[in-house]
Amino acid sequence: MNRQELIRIIRQKQSFLCVGLDTDLQKIPKHLLDGPQNPIFAFNKAIIEATAPYCVAYKPNLAFYECYGLQGWEALEQTVCFLREHYPDHFLIADAKRGDIGNTSRMYAHALLEVLDFDAVTVAPYMGEDSVTPFLNYAGKWVILLALTSNGGSRDFQLFENAEGTRLFEEVLRKSREWGNDDTLMYVVGATQGKMFEEIRKIVPNSFLLVPGIGAQGGSLEEVCRYGMTRDCGLLVNASRSILYADNSENFAEAAALEAQKLQKQMATLLL
Amino acid sequence: MNRQELIRIIRQKQSFLCVGLDTDLQKIPKHLLDGPQNPIFAFNKAIIEATAPYCVAYKPNLAFYECYGLQGWEALEQTVCFLREHYPDHFLIADAKRGDIGNTSRMYAHALLEVLDFDAVTVAPYMGEDSVTPFLNYAGKWVILLALTSNGGSRDFQLFENAEGTRLFEEVLRKSREWGNDDTLMYVVGATQGKMFEEIRKIVPNSFLLVPGIGAQGGSLEEVCRYGMTRDCGLLVNASRSILYADNSENFAEAAALEAQKLQKQMATLLL
Repeated sequence: MNRQELIRIIRQKQSFLCVGLDTDLQKIPKHLLDGPQNPIFAFNKAIIEATAPYCVAYKPNLAFYECYGLQGWEALEQTVCFLREHYPDHFLIADAKRGDIGNTSRMYAHALLEVLDFDAVTVAPYMGEDSVTPFLNYAGKWVILLALTSNGGSRDFQLFENAEGTRLFEEVLRKSREWGNDDTLMYVVGATQGKMFEEIRKIVPNSFLLVPGIGAQGGSLEEVCRYGMTRDCGLLVNASRSILYADNSENFAEAAALEAQKLQKQMATLLL
Repeated sequence: MNRQELIRIIRQKQSFLCVGLDTDLQKIPKHLLDGPQNPIFAFNKAIIEATAPYCVAYKPNLAFYECYGLQGWEALEQTVCFLREHYPDHFLIADAKRGDIGNTSRMYAHALLEVLDFDAVTVAPYMGEDSVTPFLNYAGKWVILLALTSNGGSRDFQLFENAEGTRLFEEVLRKSREWGNDDTLMYVVGATQGKMFEEIRKIVPNSFLLVPGIGAQGGSLEEVCRYGMTRDCGLLVNASRSILYADNSENFAEAAALEAQKLQKQMATLLL
């Protein structure tokens, strides 16, 4: 999905919500564990059917699939196939945070952008250019590079500052513009970073930002929009746990829909 | 496997060789593709049986398994089970380069250190403390943190320098000592980095270093040992392509054994 299509869908649905599919067998309703389907997929399918009207993107977090081995990988494949077949207008992000030497990044890119046909993959920048560019060789696909993340540990290295006062996350933003552009590169910026969005917009005024950290992690949607929104929206705001686990009875999907709708309504008022 | 066991095995085998299992269906001998077994596993099994006397560690690179979906994940599980059953004295590294918010890193750690029972996992430091520490909660298991990697892109951010002249990779080494120690933390340092090993040993004099970049990437084993070896060896030197694809006829395993043996003999002369 290209930038213009993404912007069109955001306008049309009055939403820039991404639902994070961090599906945890310990937390899903117990009745799904005994059903005929792979329970991870059964849960995802119900969540997707309930929340699709209110969001523009889905983001499976690969850790939550890998930890169930073959069953998890099967559920991931089923989820992507289901989304591609029934919801072709949703943007699909593999939250993988991969990045390795060129030879290896090419394999990850093939796995996630071709075999699994995601629209985008999150990539860690530590290993530099040849770890990132193999993911940029697919037309209409995206790299979402980690810039300033939502967690406490983001302070450890991302704020490391050179003699000119440039911090590492700013160097990542600046340098990566040599490898891609606003049609191929987005950045992860945590909702917990508040006014730092102003600093980020000085370097990447028009890039889309994938923003985790609303909900369970405590970030504010209003603040993110005040400092980070562009004329084209320029934001995909993710919520995972607050939607997926809004209720763990048989009504989990309805509860998830209500949570997603609540966020979508708030987003409609915030869109410029 | 703990540090003392690892050192004992290195002394006993006169080897600090790690064989990287970067198994690529495009490169393995064609006759394996039509066999009754999963061809990735069939290849790995033959390589392991041929090279086990000459190495102390194996390192599957997860990208090469993920890109084959269920077939790949199955081969990874089979490979780890086979190694655990028949080669309990080999150190097993998941080359995954993972790292995410705490909640997610916990899932990756569970997947790789419990479900798959690897001894160690490579972790990317960009997201800081809470992205790394969940991997440190397993007795006898290890984090291998990226410090100064072997690829060209290592210059982009790893050499980013603060006003005091500390470079990012040095800050990663320094800071991570607050989270673990020589019994739980190793570091990735590329063989292509030559004299930089001297700088690294000033900060982590006794840590084990996992050293990729010998062979296909052009690093020198002598140079790595001259500047990086400690009294306890302190090195695991990886070779992947030069061993796996030494020959792609039916004699591939014998050719791999010869390559591994050649490196082991060289290592025996270099061990202090």
